[in-house]
Amino acid sequence: MSESTAVSSHTEMDVEKFKEPSSTYHMLGGDDPHSYAQNSEYQKQLVVSAEEWICKLIDKHLDIEKPAFDPYMTFRIADFGGSIGPNTFFAIENIIKAVENKYKYNIKNPRIPEYHVFFNDHVDNDFNTLFRNIPTTRKYFPAGVPGSFHGRLFPNTTLHFAHCSTALHWLSRIPKEVIEVNSIAFNKGRIHYGGAAKAVKDAYSTQYRKDIDSFLSARAQELVLEGLMVLVILCFPDGVPPSESSIGIGFDIFGACLEDMARTGKITEEQVDSFNLPFYYPSPSELKALIEENGRFTLERIERLISPMKIEKPNLKIVTKGCVSHLRAVIGGLVKEHFGNEIVEELFQLHMKKLGENPMMFDEKYRKETNYFLFLKQKSHL
Amino acid sequence: MSESTAVSSHTEMDVEKFKEPSSTYHMLGGDDPHSYAQNSEYQKQLVVSAEEWICKLIDKHLDIEKPAFDPYMTFRIADFGGSIGPNTFFAIENIIKAVENKYKYNIKNPRIPEYHVFFNDHVDNDFNTLFRNIPTTRKYFPAGVPGSFHGRLFPNTTLHFAHCSTALHWLSRIPKEVIEVNSIAFNKGRIHYGGAAKAVKDAYSTQYRKDIDSFLSARAQELVLEGLMVLVILCFPDGVPPSESSIGIGFDIFGACLEDMARTGKITEEQVDSFNLPFYYPSPSELKALIEENGRFTLERIERLISPMKIEKPNLKIVTKGCVSHLRAVIGGLVKEHFGNEIVEELFQLHMKKLGENPMMFDEKYRKETNYFLFLKQKSHL
Repeated sequence: MSESTAVSSHTEMDVEKFKEPSSTYHMLGGDDPHSYAQNSEYQKQLVVSAEEWICKLIDKHLDIEKPAFDPYMTFRIADFGGSIGPNTFFAIENIIKAVENKYKYNIKNPRIPEYHVFFNDHVDNDFNTLFRNIPTTRKYFPAGVPGSFHGRLFPNTTLHFAHCSTALHWLSRIPKEVIEVNSIAFNKGRIHYGGAAKAVKDAYSTQYRKDIDSFLSARAQELVLEGLMVLVILCFPDGVPPSESSIGIGFDIFGACLEDMARTGKITEEQVDSFNLPFYYPSPSELKALIEENGRFTLERIERLISPMKIEKPNLKIVTKGCVSHLRAVIGGLVKEHFGNEIVEELFQLHMKKLGENPMMFDEKYRKETNYFLFLKQKSHL
Repeated sequence: MSESTAVSSHTEMDVEKFKEPSSTYHMLGGDDPHSYAQNSEYQKQLVVSAEEWICKLIDKHLDIEKPAFDPYMTFRIADFGGSIGPNTFFAIENIIKAVENKYKYNIKNPRIPEYHVFFNDHVDNDFNTLFRNIPTTRKYFPAGVPGSFHGRLFPNTTLHFAHCSTALHWLSRIPKEVIEVNSIAFNKGRIHYGGAAKAVKDAYSTQYRKDIDSFLSARAQELVLEGLMVLVILCFPDGVPPSESSIGIGFDIFGACLEDMARTGKITEEQVDSFNLPFYYPSPSELKALIEENGRFTLERIERLISPMKIEKPNLKIVTKGCVSHLRAVIGGLVKEHFGNEIVEELFQLHMKKLGENPMMFDEKYRKETNYFLFLKQKSHL
């Protein structure tokens, strides 16, 4: 991805800028019981717990005296990787409420700008459903933006506010070493870096570093100077391996289901070996270092969010079902693409059964992952 | 629709501004043989014949010295009612080529802006197909905008160029008098105003007047001062009733098919009486008067476009098939919604048969409709 800001003539590199990265991961569309729309309660609770921080920090950091935030101009907001809703709509409404308050109580010029809101996700996202679900009570002009957030999606200096919640753990691609049989990072028999060899973890973290850098550089160009950005990112504390966490245990059990199906010949061992989840969870210090290394944003605030859905004595049947439904909404598309549609139902049924037999992932002591809220300010287009 | 430009606070009227008009007509989506994508060759030829005019008039009227057209800023283009492509992509590329030439050969500051391109159609349009079809060689950042072009779709002063080809004959709704049994404009036994009572034609033209006014007022607000707009609109010469034209004959035959099906009990007579096509074709002088009455644009140029697909000795079988396929792509959705899916196939088969028996609509002497190319310049936001 070219990071040049010069647009004096359109070169081949410029055309490159508009191209999609090769893989296009997306959530399950539609409104049926397996859709993302019906299985994103966890994400919603995160949006709610981020709400207060967003209000407070917009109030503190949005400098409406700067020309880029002139209330006579349009205020442009984009949500990156927001799938088909509904959480993307709650997030946008919350941002608008906070921005509106800021303009409304400005004594010198109490005027509220118009809002142009952009909903982004991969080109294979179900935008038809997204568009049908946009609330009719909205006070903004909506648009959909297809494409990977690891690349450029808007012209220079377009956005005033960028938002991306629980989406940045998606890598742009599986690091190729992880599926190369002769590589030391070949991840045989596993579907994630949790519990795998160090080389596998390194390949994942190298990919993440590239992806975060692309994301930040693209957003820095798209945002106005001192434009604001909120990220919500799932992190593991330094030194905690994901394999000893509920997420890691869940992935291991899912991997065991695939191995069971390979043993009965429903899928091949090679298919299992070449299947890896494109997710990476950094530690907060790793994340801070990556933002600093990129150099285009000031990290104004980083906060742990209260863990959503903490239930004192969970009903195991209900949480197991919820967990499988959520995972299916998120990775059902990947599974279908890699193994074919015919195994999807059986695989997730098996996952439900195995999770029921091994409920340790729901034990509070394995809840080691924490969502972090980051508030950034653009400081450089270059 | 509120035409106020004041946005000092969001009132209920503002919320109204973002609402969809009640009906949401749209073309048939997807890529199958009945889709609009596969049946829009006629529209493509129009885009091609408008191409030269667009180049010439952008060169003449685009004043890049004006602050709104600063080459360091983004140049924003919207295509209204462009369905799912591919013609919308050809039109956009042509506009960009012309704009680019203008900036490139500007000796003082030969810099080319970045382009932000918005594809608009109704919320029920198949945006998923549209997004998948956007050319990978594009030199712009694309976005989709769901909603009726009879209302506001963008914040104030957003667009530099608006384009709308062969879409403005769609009314926002069927005038209600036309389907009221006790009204003098009740259009019993007909599906269009062609050949109907004067009151029916009047009801249609009143609705068209309102719709064109809404369209122009919305676009005037969305465009920058002196922003440009191209419209391609199918017109009938003054005094020529559509009933004596190929389009009118085609509609009459389609209406006769519906009556046949009502006689055999497959649909009811009431269903036929309440079905009317939401299309209106003005005369060039009527159009000019409506633009003047609206007052927000200067009509810089109006030109007749060369009639597309004029074939000396048409192969009747081929043109009949093409005609039915095209009509099905355009009104198939309306038919399905009004009469139910189960009659669609039989109805269009019957239409094909009847057109084959009555090929007069393909006779050159009935080709009375002409597409007009209009080039407008925004002169007022109020």
